[in-house]
Amino acid sequence: MQLTGNLLIGQQSLFGTNGSIHAVNASTGAPVGPAFGGATPGDLERACFLAWAAFDIFRETSLDARAAFLEAIAQKILDVGDALIERCMIETGLSRQRLEGERGRTINQLRMFADVVREGDFLGARIDPSMPDRRPLPRADLRLRQIGLGPVAVFGASNFPLAFSVAGGDTASALAAGCPVIVKAHSAHPGTSELVGRAVQCAVKDCGMPEGTFSLLYDSGRDIGQALVQDRRIKAAGFTGSRSGGTALMELAAARPEPIPVYAEMSSINPVLLFPAALKNRGEAIAKAFVQSLVLGAGQFCTNPGLVLAVDGQDLDAFIAAASTALKDTAAQTMLTPGIFKAYESSVERWMEHADVTCVARGREANGENQGRSVLFVTTAEAFGTTRELREEIFGASSLIVRCRSLDVMLELIESLEGQLTAALHIDESDYLDAKRVIPALERRAGRVLVNGFGTGVEVGHAMVHGGPFPSTADGRSTSVGSMAICRFLRPVSYQDVPDELLPDALKDANPFRLNRRIDGRWQSMS
Amino acid sequence: MQLTGNLLIGQQSLFGTNGSIHAVNASTGAPVGPAFGGATPGDLERACFLAWAAFDIFRETSLDARAAFLEAIAQKILDVGDALIERCMIETGLSRQRLEGERGRTINQLRMFADVVREGDFLGARIDPSMPDRRPLPRADLRLRQIGLGPVAVFGASNFPLAFSVAGGDTASALAAGCPVIVKAHSAHPGTSELVGRAVQCAVKDCGMPEGTFSLLYDSGRDIGQALVQDRRIKAAGFTGSRSGGTALMELAAARPEPIPVYAEMSSINPVLLFPAALKNRGEAIAKAFVQSLVLGAGQFCTNPGLVLAVDGQDLDAFIAAASTALKDTAAQTMLTPGIFKAYESSVERWMEHADVTCVARGREANGENQGRSVLFVTTAEAFGTTRELREEIFGASSLIVRCRSLDVMLELIESLEGQLTAALHIDESDYLDAKRVIPALERRAGRVLVNGFGTGVEVGHAMVHGGPFPSTADGRSTSVGSMAICRFLRPVSYQDVPDELLPDALKDANPFRLNRRIDGRWQSMS
Repeated sequence: MQLTGNLLIGQQSLFGTNGSIHAVNASTGAPVGPAFGGATPGDLERACFLAWAAFDIFRETSLDARAAFLEAIAQKILDVGDALIERCMIETGLSRQRLEGERGRTINQLRMFADVVREGDFLGARIDPSMPDRRPLPRADLRLRQIGLGPVAVFGASNFPLAFSVAGGDTASALAAGCPVIVKAHSAHPGTSELVGRAVQCAVKDCGMPEGTFSLLYDSGRDIGQALVQDRRIKAAGFTGSRSGGTALMELAAARPEPIPVYAEMSSINPVLLFPAALKNRGEAIAKAFVQSLVLGAGQFCTNPGLVLAVDGQDLDAFIAAASTALKDTAAQTMLTPGIFKAYESSVERWMEHADVTCVARGREANGENQGRSVLFVTTAEAFGTTRELREEIFGASSLIVRCRSLDVMLELIESLEGQLTAALHIDESDYLDAKRVIPALERRAGRVLVNGFGTGVEVGHAMVHGGPFPSTADGRSTSVGSMAICRFLRPVSYQDVPDELLPDALKDANPFRLNRRIDGRWQSMS
Repeated sequence: MQLTGNLLIGQQSLFGTNGSIHAVNASTGAPVGPAFGGATPGDLERACFLAWAAFDIFRETSLDARAAFLEAIAQKILDVGDALIERCMIETGLSRQRLEGERGRTINQLRMFADVVREGDFLGARIDPSMPDRRPLPRADLRLRQIGLGPVAVFGASNFPLAFSVAGGDTASALAAGCPVIVKAHSAHPGTSELVGRAVQCAVKDCGMPEGTFSLLYDSGRDIGQALVQDRRIKAAGFTGSRSGGTALMELAAARPEPIPVYAEMSSINPVLLFPAALKNRGEAIAKAFVQSLVLGAGQFCTNPGLVLAVDGQDLDAFIAAASTALKDTAAQTMLTPGIFKAYESSVERWMEHADVTCVARGREANGENQGRSVLFVTTAEAFGTTRELREEIFGASSLIVRCRSLDVMLELIESLEGQLTAALHIDESDYLDAKRVIPALERRAGRVLVNGFGTGVEVGHAMVHGGPFPSTADGRSTSVGSMAICRFLRPVSYQDVPDELLPDALKDANPFRLNRRIDGRWQSMS
């Protein structure tokens, strides 16, 4: 498939005339063709108009039809074939293996949401039957279902060019919820975006979905993305990226005449807690696994282990030595964009110069452009406690080990941390009592608590929370990975004494979708 | 029970020294003793400190213990006896019958949440079992439950001095979710607040709940309420009141270093749509029921029918005549506060002077202080469409009938409305086709769609949504009435490979709470 650089607005494909962007070969820094034309305000207006016009139709498509549509998107993405992987490798510097895995995840995600839609539990159907004879007042017939919020703006992520971009988790869950989607493509992988966008556009057509169900826009600056979040027809936004980008969107959304929810997944240092017995018994093995997790994907994962807390002593010394040895042997890796590489370098540089921070190991020298060298720092609890900068994310394969005088000091530091996506405990059985003291603080602070593992490798399942208190996300009541992500784009509507003929199918007496429903507060299963 | 005017901070009872407020006899405008001492910043600090200290303990109390606590609150409120009703009548001008009914609702609400807690479905327990043999990567054991957000600030409402105040819906649902509560008492009923607050304080003690589970503060200005929403230990707020008050809280919450959700229930005009056949066949009966709903509680309900849309013609003339006749016979009623009465009067006055608005009927003259006279206005679709003021709520027994040239004009006007709590359709069978065209617009705009009834009389059930898009509430994804209100104060936490011994009871293999859980995405019922 030839790249055109065109905007995809409903079923149209046209070249935007508001400036243009180019992809950059991540490994060389050289621009790669074609040019991608930036959307004009008129293009945005057209995409929003179509999305709004599509909403009432799309949200009432049958569960089967919507599920089949999600499956068609998955298939169309597979049909793009190797061209997708090759283009994406150039644009992101990520390996074939990684991107093939990520494509699998993207496909599985779409298929999982198809299953979720077919099952229909997300509709949250509830019926409180009428009680005409109740005294002093009769009870009306009340029925409830969840409906989509409305058209959703999705901002693609640089670090998951497939699984969190054009047809990634935000798009899949919004479509599953019955919401049309307008994607603002990430400038770091416009060609990948076009290929995936065309697959979605094609699925819309083949499945007979309303035209405005999906559009894809390029933005040559920031105006179009900002205008998108501010458009009155947009009712929610999904975003994965930097803290500054996410909070800017949150502010725009809160300042609208009608504020809307923003689901921004922003920044997390994912504390790793090493407990005494585990450190003593398995320190070296943990160190090796830690370094493996740290350098995965050049450290460009939201769940990258950026902070290690442990009680000081010779076991920690041994851990640091083992981690240093392992880290020194790691290769420098091409980062997603020259900008991300520069930001990484300058953050590492700043820490290098910090009086209270020691660099104990660096990975191998770079042998090409934009290659990030992994790095391991050590500091004291005192310095960590008083230096705000050390609690901020460095996006890349950098981690900081903090020597704590005691478990109590460790616990204090935990209470000083901001919201996190994950928190990991490394414990042996004799650490359990100590772990029990710490878990409540971690639950308050993180979306996922894990034992004897690392946060990288986020399972797309039903019990996954990839979310957490601010600033790890904008809204800790939600997850952006897993089947529960659909809940972000729904709101409940109640129907009182509505004749069966006028009720949505989900709430009709005959239950044509064979939904599990909550009758008078009690769950009634159809299976 | 003698009123003291004291703040209730945990188990303490002390007189605030930051100015004071007095209750006002709603029927006479005269101040009523005692003085209620305003909280100082130090008092607020103490309440927040205690709430934070209580959180980890309170949220892990057993389901039975928390349910029993909610039931104890209900019983203690009943135990206050008639003194509560009498004080509340003086402070609010509401009738004995209404307040006894509202007390019943308050009690039932607490008991309903006790049932919800015992059942445990609100924990949303999910387990995705591990798959150690999965290829290419094994799957970890993942488990999920909902936990409380943290301490919640509740701002009592003036119009529901029992059911949406100190131990009302927000407090009951937050406590049910495992969140300690700090109430900022509404200045319109401080004595009622103290009586109910003491009941809760006593239940905390009797049930052995941690001290900081509940506090009650008076605010002699606005500083303490504002500081409460800004305190770092407060993780959500519930509010029922004016649009200006609610949006001010939303702005404060969004500007915090860690933004928090605000559930503000603010303003709604609750459109009523009269369709041709219903209007022709039952116009007079609908008119009488409409006036009954309009004047209920002096029109001081969030779901008060403030707007009627209908196709112009002689059937509408007949409806207006019948409604006018009924309304002229309605008594003036004491409003909640002199301030609310004055605001009502001046809004009505402004509409009286509006060139495009005709007053077609007024209720009977007042025969005492602060009595609001009901009023019925009529205008054209053109005037309504172009005058923003006519789409804003008048809090009180005032309604506006809009003559529309056609159903299409009516539909256009609906699309121009802001978010609403309720929307009511009056239809006969031959109106169904027309109704079908309108319902999607109503679903997008309202939390509850009802047929052949009026929004007043909000059932506390499982399928109720008392919420809706902005500005009816701050967050249309939620309800403040009914069992689903508990969801507002919860967030999901995921546990990965956590040993059974360290898992919360809700997620242990043995399922000690006998919870319904979602295993690998499939609901597994224990009943």
